[in-house]
Amino acid sequence: MNAVLLSGSPSAPSRSSVLLAHVRQRLEESDARCHTIALRELPPRALLQADARDPELQRALAQVAGAELVVIATPIYKAAYSGLLKAFLDLLPQDGLRGKAVLPLATGGSLAHLLAIDYALKPVLHALGARQIADAVFVADTQLPRNAEGRYEAEPAAIDRLEQALLGLCEPVPQRYLAPRVLAAAALAAC
Amino acid sequence: MNAVLLSGSPSAPSRSSVLLAHVRQRLEESDARCHTIALRELPPRALLQADARDPELQRALAQVAGAELVVIATPIYKAAYSGLLKAFLDLLPQDGLRGKAVLPLATGGSLAHLLAIDYALKPVLHALGARQIADAVFVADTQLPRNAEGRYEAEPAAIDRLEQALLGLCEPVPQRYLAPRVLAAAALAAC
Amino acid sequence: MNAVLLSGSPSAPSRSSVLLAHVRQRLEESDARCHTIALRELPPRALLQADARDPELQRALAQVAGAELVVIATPIYKAAYSGLLKAFLDLLPQDGLRGKAVLPLATGGSLAHLLAIDYALKPVLHALGARQIADAVFVADTQLPRNAEGRYEAEPAAIDRLEQALLGLCEPVPQRYLAPRVLAAAALAAC
Amino acid sequence: MNAVLLSGSPSAPSRSSVLLAHVRQRLEESDARCHTIALRELPPRALLQADARDPELQRALAQVAGAELVVIATPIYKAAYSGLLKAFLDLLPQDGLRGKAVLPLATGGSLAHLLAIDYALKPVLHALGARQIADAVFVADTQLPRNAEGRYEAEPAAIDRLEQALLGLCEPVPQRYLAPRVLAAAALAAC
Repeated sequence: MNAVLLSGSPSAPSRSSVLLAHVRQRLEESDARCHTIALRELPPRALLQADARDPELQRALAQVAGAELVVIATPIYKAAYSGLLKAFLDLLPQDGLRGKAVLPLATGGSLAHLLAIDYALKPVLHALGARQIADAVFVADTQLPRNAEGRYEAEPAAIDRLEQALLGLCEPVPQRYLAPRVLAAAALAAC
Repeated sequence: MNAVLLSGSPSAPSRSSVLLAHVRQRLEESDARCHTIALRELPPRALLQADARDPELQRALAQVAGAELVVIATPIYKAAYSGLLKAFLDLLPQDGLRGKAVLPLATGGSLAHLLAIDYALKPVLHALGARQIADAVFVADTQLPRNAEGRYEAEPAAIDRLEQALLGLCEPVPQRYLAPRVLAAAALAAC
Repeated sequence: MNAVLLSGSPSAPSRSSVLLAHVRQRLEESDARCHTIALRELPPRALLQADARDPELQRALAQVAGAELVVIATPIYKAAYSGLLKAFLDLLPQDGLRGKAVLPLATGGSLAHLLAIDYALKPVLHALGARQIADAVFVADTQLPRNAEGRYEAEPAAIDRLEQALLGLCEPVPQRYLAPRVLAAAALAAC
Repeated sequence: MNAVLLSGSPSAPSRSSVLLAHVRQRLEESDARCHTIALRELPPRALLQADARDPELQRALAQVAGAELVVIATPIYKAAYSGLLKAFLDLLPQDGLRGKAVLPLATGGSLAHLLAIDYALKPVLHALGARQIADAVFVADTQLPRNAEGRYEAEPAAIDRLEQALLGLCEPVPQRYLAPRVLAAAALAAC
């Protein structure tokens, strides 16, 4: 399986990238091929001027196109995802997440920002064609304190929620909701 | 397969219920057991006062609990789903749509109301635990005119979109995104 | 000044109605004529079937039409306002809140529901033409505990926030942003 | 009056900047001092890495801080405002639009994107403290065709809607909703 992990924080280091690193490690343990894209390191002018011909942007967009799983990490600023993340999503083709599983991760100053995932981020993911959105994980900044060396570190409760979300990605999904008969009928009608 | 079809229009007849009837016919052709709940006919006082002990409400809630597929039809009023629909959804248990496929259908005065599905309805469905939300179908009122007998009738373009959405319910979904190894690791970590 | 206070909780007593009662007392101290409408006591069938000819509903709608200030109190259920509240708002004319000040009050299980005001309620208020929306007050259930007699009572911190919101309603607002010259020019252009 | 006009399109020329230019001309006719900030021309690295110490960004932020009116123009991409616009809004202080009038202008492929203003943009404006949000203007791309010289030009119907919005900025607003008595009482309570 190919997985792309988008790091949407304009800062480095960032709390949301700590969540992303944890997920990456788990995915690699499961033999997924992982590519992390630190959006803040993409060519900034090409990104802000939506110049998709830039070779580095093209490489990043190709990685998203080739992935079965897209993990998206963003801080919540002003009640929504970061502008940096949206600038990259703006470059995806109209149905750029169709057929892919998406796992959203977010951090924010307090629990009061939780609904930004459902009300701000997910409508954009839906507009991009995503239909398999795993349980999102929101972690308040207080659960991502700096450790003795000054690095952000997720508290056990936050790790547990990440693990739950990963478990969700393993859940068997009913393969078909409808019998082939309606499939055939609908296909006929669509002719 | 058990399917429940929720008709959220306060009016009868209604355009959204025409969409619902079409979907029901297709589901029955596919041998699904279908229950349509016309929310406007539920005991109104119990519904508005959120009295879930009412026997008729209990029956309706049990039908939702027992369904694998929930089809939700609503007119868009004031940039959102109908209050009648939300009054019923308010009675569902906290994770009342977890593990179910949901197909949203909506009608509205013009295309300008389209995003109400993604920005108003889907966040509520997510709050109820729904993770398998099929491509929603929005039909403008002009595509549901009255026919010679005065009944609302969906135009062919609207029917096509319903058929596409039904096809979506037939699409094979990748059964697992991750290998069992990460499942085991995550299960261990969750202990 | 005429004020209408809409109580949107399907339950009685309710935490949100405690907030509403406090605001009403303050408004009356300021000589406002106040009408509280307990939406759960309106004729339930007429409300759910959107039958605006019902005399009691007509009276309630007339009270809203005649008010300069509309205070709206709702519990947050399933990441949004109550269905009961929306069922009433659905009956308002298309621009039914145009030119009125609106003060939203909400209660919820935790701070995690805070953004439901901005993302779910305010878009509906905007669709109704409201342009003067005062700072909303969200109070978590823990700040509205039962007192010794078993009645919900707002803690001092919650009362403070209500008072701040009332102060906001007193703030002088710049009367015009543009000089009459552009007014005249625009009026000409609109001819 | 000081007005700042934010141009949020990553492209130049852009349809949304045509709307902005029209509004600017009208504001200048009304003797407003106008500053247009083409966000795509700000230092891209500083903007994407949220480096508010950059002198050009500081100048732009100071212009917003000093404005009574902020006009915001954005294309709608993927059901929301542009990432470029959000990247700039992310740099504003927490209450950076408090006390300012805001006029949102948006363009999009079709009327189907209209609600992105109310559901995506306005919650961010609210989070920034904006309370005076004028009637937004949404113009579909078809109403902004290229003219004989290849430049985007707003059709008369679009111009009319801009004029209406400008008229809205001229409307007298009730200066106070409450008598000074409640002001005094609330001030006392807040002590």
